[in-house]
Amino acid sequence: METIIEDAHAGAVSPELVVDALFACRKTAAIKAAIELDLFTHIGEGKTAAVLASATSASERGVRILCDYLVVHGFLTKEGGQYRMTPSTRMFLDRNSPAYMGCAIEFVAAPEVLDNFLRDPAAVVRNGGSAGLANLSADNPVWLKFARGMGSFTGLSAKLLAGEISSWPGSPKNVLDIAAGPGLFGIEIAKAFPSAEIVAVDWGAVLELSRQNAEQSGVADRYRTIAGSAFDVDWGAGFDLVLLPNFMHHFDFPTCAALLRKIIASLAEDGRIVGVDFVPNEDGVSPPFPAAFSWEMLASTPAGQAYTQSELTEMARMAGLAGVTVKSMPPTPASLILFR
Amino acid sequence: METIIEDAHAGAVSPELVVDALFACRKTAAIKAAIELDLFTHIGEGKTAAVLASATSASERGVRILCDYLVVHGFLTKEGGQYRMTPSTRMFLDRNSPAYMGCAIEFVAAPEVLDNFLRDPAAVVRNGGSAGLANLSADNPVWLKFARGMGSFTGLSAKLLAGEISSWPGSPKNVLDIAAGPGLFGIEIAKAFPSAEIVAVDWGAVLELSRQNAEQSGVADRYRTIAGSAFDVDWGAGFDLVLLPNFMHHFDFPTCAALLRKIIASLAEDGRIVGVDFVPNEDGVSPPFPAAFSWEMLASTPAGQAYTQSELTEMARMAGLAGVTVKSMPPTPASLILFR
Repeated sequence: METIIEDAHAGAVSPELVVDALFACRKTAAIKAAIELDLFTHIGEGKTAAVLASATSASERGVRILCDYLVVHGFLTKEGGQYRMTPSTRMFLDRNSPAYMGCAIEFVAAPEVLDNFLRDPAAVVRNGGSAGLANLSADNPVWLKFARGMGSFTGLSAKLLAGEISSWPGSPKNVLDIAAGPGLFGIEIAKAFPSAEIVAVDWGAVLELSRQNAEQSGVADRYRTIAGSAFDVDWGAGFDLVLLPNFMHHFDFPTCAALLRKIIASLAEDGRIVGVDFVPNEDGVSPPFPAAFSWEMLASTPAGQAYTQSELTEMARMAGLAGVTVKSMPPTPASLILFR
Repeated sequence: METIIEDAHAGAVSPELVVDALFACRKTAAIKAAIELDLFTHIGEGKTAAVLASATSASERGVRILCDYLVVHGFLTKEGGQYRMTPSTRMFLDRNSPAYMGCAIEFVAAPEVLDNFLRDPAAVVRNGGSAGLANLSADNPVWLKFARGMGSFTGLSAKLLAGEISSWPGSPKNVLDIAAGPGLFGIEIAKAFPSAEIVAVDWGAVLELSRQNAEQSGVADRYRTIAGSAFDVDWGAGFDLVLLPNFMHHFDFPTCAALLRKIIASLAEDGRIVGVDFVPNEDGVSPPFPAAFSWEMLASTPAGQAYTQSELTEMARMAGLAGVTVKSMPPTPASLILFR
């Protein structure tokens, strides 16, 4: 189908892009089924539908139809009745791979999340936002799903963030990690700077995961947590580094500026604020993932979106800062936002 | 994003295909919102988000974010703040186009239908099928949505079917259209053969739509309907042409063979049975749409799937026929199945 999508982009008139979008939910359903059955991991060096059905306790007919669908959409190959992984599938969907992303499905295709998009998407556009995730209480289990799922997306950008900060003069000692989620950003800083102490803020249920990850990374003795809303808790002062990873896109402009002012008040002299976020170009339609991410937030939040560099600059100025430097973090779709 | 998908197919390792599948539901939601707001029709020769918001009674922020998302995914272009349609969008999503496909969203993304895929897709694979649409009673309004939605997909294949039959010697007089849905297959035959009388079988609510369409096409005086299940109703005998469009894929092999036997018993001498369906190649993974269609049926029916030519041949033989001739119907993804 990709070939025909190319044709459509090249100007040939074709219904394929429309058909692809109409039926796109089927693709999410297929990848969700395959991940939940751990089909990719079972495929290993290549298996038939019969062997896979037995390994996953599923119907052979069901497995064959799912695998054929996954071949059509480029996730598997099929030869002589044997299904095999592509190099990309092996890297990102085999549970034995360190780059495994399968756990993202738990959040990205959680019923609560899909409902935000599919219940009434026209209403989301009419209203210019959605109660969405803001409807969920702090102890809703979806936040833990979110943190677990997002961990598979943020591992690399957390390492790249730590690399950036390692290139700075001096070493951060007191580090605040706001909306820490799985905690990877703060933990990578702790790993890069053996004298850094991390304070992680997030919902209580989520912080259990951050603490687990800190323990597994051997930095638990320098890892402290504060449960609660970043807008309400007293996180203390004297931070020479404040991390704000994937958080601002949930909120509107004034809310972000107010949060920045709260952070500034808790900075040590020469303390720095560093965000990680999706930053579309000023045209609003490139690069693909950051530009598409505003739709994610329109359907999931009352007033969030991905902010462009000029919007982030204005936000910084509203909070009394000079501006921002934005650095892309290839190959991830995220950018570093260095508040100045 | 398409460029990176190409890379993945070319062998470069990339998470983009996985990310695309994880987030694919967002694309269905966006196209659903745009169709329901009739955004494409309003765009006409090009509009700003502000003008579109006013025309669709929606929030400007919501419209801008949705339109930017549609640009990212190739449905619109954006220049100087003006959104414009691509040639494919203009052809298939502008309500003024005769090839408008927007009404398909009513069925393809109906809550009842999406639920079949997204509620528990792993269970569908485990069970090798789903109660799915079989759970719905004959008078469920989803069948009318189905018929309305599918009309936008079947118009061209109905014309191609009539063209094929016009190339045969002789003219069909008594025509039975099984599971007529919007009725287009039988209606095109009625238009092509002025002495043909059509008997359409489907659920009662759906037949109201078939009759409307027959009236609009000026063939209502030769159009008779029988409400009920194709497996139960007495549709009479003496048919020299029986149409079986997009029906067999809902059922298992023995059920299809039994239906064929019922049809054979009602044929006139030299009567013919012609199916229209998605027929994958024997490899089960090509061409893309017919091969992917079995997943559609796995999630929506207890035991349906798209049948290959060799399966259709076996089915025909089980019913006492000699076999089938399968003819593709480009540019549609459907094939003609001529039972011999």
